[in-house]
Amino acid sequence: MADQKKMVEAITSMDVDFAKWYTDVIKKAELIDYTSVKGCMVFRPYGYAIWENMQKDLDARFKKTGHENVYMPLLIPESLLQKEKDHVQGFAPEVAWVTYGGEEKLAERLCIRPTSETLFCEHYAKVINSYRDLPKLYNQWCSVMRWEKTTRPFLRNSEFLWQEGHTMHETAEEAKEETLRMLGIYKAFFEEALAIPVIDGQKTEKEKFAGAEATYTVEAMMHNGVALQAGTSHYFGDGFARSFDITFTGRDNTLQYPHQTSWGVSTRMIGGVIMVHGDDNGLVLPPRIAPIQVAIIPVAMHKEGVLEAAEGLKERLSEKFRVKLDATDNSPGWKFAEYEMRGVPLRLEIGPKDIANNQCVLVRRDTREKTFTPLDQLEETIQNLLDQIHDNLYARALENLNARMFEARTHEEFLDIAANKSGFIKAMWCGDSACEDQIKDETGGVKSRCIPFTEEKLSDTCVCCGRPAKHMLVWGRQY
Amino acid sequence: MADQKKMVEAITSMDVDFAKWYTDVIKKAELIDYTSVKGCMVFRPYGYAIWENMQKDLDARFKKTGHENVYMPLLIPESLLQKEKDHVQGFAPEVAWVTYGGEEKLAERLCIRPTSETLFCEHYAKVINSYRDLPKLYNQWCSVMRWEKTTRPFLRNSEFLWQEGHTMHETAEEAKEETLRMLGIYKAFFEEALAIPVIDGQKTEKEKFAGAEATYTVEAMMHNGVALQAGTSHYFGDGFARSFDITFTGRDNTLQYPHQTSWGVSTRMIGGVIMVHGDDNGLVLPPRIAPIQVAIIPVAMHKEGVLEAAEGLKERLSEKFRVKLDATDNSPGWKFAEYEMRGVPLRLEIGPKDIANNQCVLVRRDTREKTFTPLDQLEETIQNLLDQIHDNLYARALENLNARMFEARTHEEFLDIAANKSGFIKAMWCGDSACEDQIKDETGGVKSRCIPFTEEKLSDTCVCCGRPAKHMLVWGRQY
Repeated sequence: MADQKKMVEAITSMDVDFAKWYTDVIKKAELIDYTSVKGCMVFRPYGYAIWENMQKDLDARFKKTGHENVYMPLLIPESLLQKEKDHVQGFAPEVAWVTYGGEEKLAERLCIRPTSETLFCEHYAKVINSYRDLPKLYNQWCSVMRWEKTTRPFLRNSEFLWQEGHTMHETAEEAKEETLRMLGIYKAFFEEALAIPVIDGQKTEKEKFAGAEATYTVEAMMHNGVALQAGTSHYFGDGFARSFDITFTGRDNTLQYPHQTSWGVSTRMIGGVIMVHGDDNGLVLPPRIAPIQVAIIPVAMHKEGVLEAAEGLKERLSEKFRVKLDATDNSPGWKFAEYEMRGVPLRLEIGPKDIANNQCVLVRRDTREKTFTPLDQLEETIQNLLDQIHDNLYARALENLNARMFEARTHEEFLDIAANKSGFIKAMWCGDSACEDQIKDETGGVKSRCIPFTEEKLSDTCVCCGRPAKHMLVWGRQY
Repeated sequence: MADQKKMVEAITSMDVDFAKWYTDVIKKAELIDYTSVKGCMVFRPYGYAIWENMQKDLDARFKKTGHENVYMPLLIPESLLQKEKDHVQGFAPEVAWVTYGGEEKLAERLCIRPTSETLFCEHYAKVINSYRDLPKLYNQWCSVMRWEKTTRPFLRNSEFLWQEGHTMHETAEEAKEETLRMLGIYKAFFEEALAIPVIDGQKTEKEKFAGAEATYTVEAMMHNGVALQAGTSHYFGDGFARSFDITFTGRDNTLQYPHQTSWGVSTRMIGGVIMVHGDDNGLVLPPRIAPIQVAIIPVAMHKEGVLEAAEGLKERLSEKFRVKLDATDNSPGWKFAEYEMRGVPLRLEIGPKDIANNQCVLVRRDTREKTFTPLDQLEETIQNLLDQIHDNLYARALENLNARMFEARTHEEFLDIAANKSGFIKAMWCGDSACEDQIKDETGGVKSRCIPFTEEKLSDTCVCCGRPAKHMLVWGRQY
C-alpha cells in the first residue's frame, strides 16, 4: 500500500499540528482554493456539494415550519445601516464600502451586507400594516461580507455563504417562541444531519449580537478542544421596529410595534464537520451530507465483466444513494486512499471473485470494518451501514465533548484547567461582564460560550470574583 | 363580482400602457419591492419562489449533463479584471467599486463581479495541469452587479440573480459542442418549463459578448412585440486561457491552451414569463414553475364540512402538486380575482353541493374553462389540465411570435415595418456591422437579434446597403 502511505503522508498528523492538519485536509480533499482577495475563497465542487446538501436539509426544515425564502439586495446605504445604533457600532468597523458606480463617485457610500437586518426592516416597514400581515417568516440564502483581519477557511472568511432568517411577530411571546424554535431546528440539524452534538444556551450580555435583546447559540466542540459557535438565534424585541418605524394596527385597533427575530448558520459548519469528525487519513463525512455516500471501486478492472458489474451497481444504487464509480486507471490502492481521504462513508469493492459469489465488499470509513454483502440485499445493507456510521460518528463526537467538559469550582481550579486542558469549562458566574473580561485576560482568550439551557449548581459563588453566583456558564476558547 | 372588478381595475390594461401594466402586475402580485438603492430590488416570497422553481429545473438539467456547482468570490481585483483586454473594456464602465475595507483604504480597488470569467480563469490556471483534468464543467448560482443607468424590474437590474456556467475543454471542437449543447438546454427549458418558444441563433460580431469568439442566443418575443435576449452561450476559444496563462500537458505531451465556454440565464426570465403569458387580469404562470399550481377556495365555508373537505383536499393534493388553501375570511369572489391576478394555473372550488356530489370544480387561469371532476379522479384530471395549460400557453406564445415575425426584402420595406409594426424582422445582411449601425440609427433602436440557426434566403442583397448578402438576420427592438 505504498500509494496509501504517500497519500497519508501528505496530511500532517492532527496531534502534531492541528491547524496544519486542517488546512492540509481542506486542500487535499479539494474543498476550497484561495484567491487573490484575502479571506475570499473558491468553494470547489466537492466543498460546495457539502454546502448544497446542508442547504437542502435545512431549507426543508425551514419550509416545513412555514418559512418562505426571499432575496434582499447586496448593498446597504450607509444611512440605512446607521438607523439602529448598537447594530451599526457592531458592524461598521468590518464592512466593505462601495464608493464608485462605474466612473461615478456615489453620493452616499454603500456597504456590502455583513448581515441584512436593516434591509429586512426597510422592507417590513412597507409591507406590514395590520396584524393580518403577521407573522412574516422570511429566510434568505446568500453570501455576506465581513472585513476580517485574520481569516481561516470556512471558520472565519471575509466572504461566506449562509442563511439568515428574519421574522416579525404580533407579540413578544410569539417572537421569543420563534427564536427558540429555530435554535431547536439548528440543534436537531446538527445532531441528525451532521452527527454533531451541541450545547444550547443563551449568550451573555457581553457576547450577544449587536442590537439584540437576547442571543441564543449552539456550541460545538472540535476534536482539539476548541469551541465553535455553530449557529445563533436572536430575539430583538421591538428595538429595530422602533428605529425603522415599523408599525401595525393590532386586533384592538391600536398602533403597535411588531417583535422581531433573526437566526443564521453558515459555511462555517463545514469547518465544524471537518474538525469534529476528521482523522489523520483526512475527512470523515457524515453520511447524510456527504456528496458521495458510496464510492464504487472495481478490482481487477481489466478482467471480463468487472467494469460492467461496477457500472450496473452504480446505476442501480444511484436510485437511492449518492454514488460515484471510479473507473479511472489509477490502482485500487490509490483509489482506496483517495476516497478515504475525501471522507466517503462507504467504499464498495467489486472484483471477479465477488461477481462469482454474487456479492461485494463494503468498507466503512469510520471503523474500516469490512462487510461482505450478497448483492440482492445491497440497498438494505448500505442504508443500515450509513445509519450506523452516522450513529457512530455522533457517539464519538459526544464522547469527545464529554471528555473535554471540565468543571471548575474555584478561581485557581479554573485557571489551572484553562492552562492545561482543552475543552469546555463549566463554572458559576455572578452575572457581571467584568468577570468575563478578567477571565479572558487571565487565560489569554477563554470566553463565555453560553448560559446552557441545562444549568447545574456547582457552587454558590462566582468562579472569578467570589460574589454570589447567578448562573452556570460554559466557557471555552473559540474559533 | 365587485371585488373582482376592483382588483382588475388596479391593473392598467396592457393595450393602454404596456410598461405600466408590467409594473402594476409585478407590484400587485407581490413579486418584488423597490429599495433605496436604485436597480437593487427585493425578491418577495412569490417572486423568489418562481426563481427557485426555475433553478431546480435548470440545475437538474445541468447536473444531468455532468456539470458541477461551485462558488467563486464576489470581489474581483482591478488587475484581475484587466487581464483580458476586450473583457475589461466591456465591463469596466458598469461595475461597482469597493475602495474601503472597514476604516482602511484598499491598496487596490475591487469590483463586485459583473460576471465571473476572470475568477474562474484565475482558479483554472491553478487546477488544470493535464488533459486528465479536462473537461472542467463548472456552474455557479449567484448574484451579479452591473451599474445600469436605466433599470426595469427583472429585465434590467443593477443587481440580479443568475447562473453562470464556465467550462474548459481539451479541444476547440469539444468546447464548441458544449457551447451549443448549453444553448440547446436553454431552448428546451424555455419550451418545456416556461412555455416560451425562442429563436436560437448566433450573435453578430457587433453584438457578441466582450471577449468571446462567438456568442449564441435564444431570443423570445414579448406580448407587445419587443424582443428579449433570454439566454446566451459563449465560445471563447483559447483567448482567456492565453491571457491567464492556463495550460495543460496534452496527450502528445506538449503544452497546450484549453478551450473555454460560458453560458448564463438570469432572473430576467421572470420578466419574460410575465410579458409573454400575462393578460389584463394579471399574471399567467406556466404550471411547471408556478409557486402555486392549484389554489383551493372553499365556497360557503361556514357550512358544515366545507373547511374539512378543503383541508382534506389540500393534504391529499400536496403529495403531487404545489397547493395553497385559502381559508381566510375574504369572500370567494375576492379570492377568485386574487389567485387569477397571481397567475395560479388552476383554481379548485369546493362547496356543500360539490361535497354532496363527491366532486369539485376546477377553473383554468388561461381559458377560464370550468371542469367538474369526480374527486376520485382528481389527481389525474389536475395533471392533465396542467399539461393542457402548458401546451396552450406555448401555442398562444408561438402564435404571437409568428404573427409578429415580419419579412423585409428592401430597405424601404424594412423601415416601413420598423416604423409601423412591433416584432421581429427577418432580412438579408451583408455581414458588415456598419449596416447594423445604420439600421439602428434609422429606426431609433432596431438591432440585430441573431443569425438564426434556421436561415432562409429572402433575397440576394443586404437590406441596408444592397451589397451581396451573407446571412439572414432576425432584427428587433429589445428590452
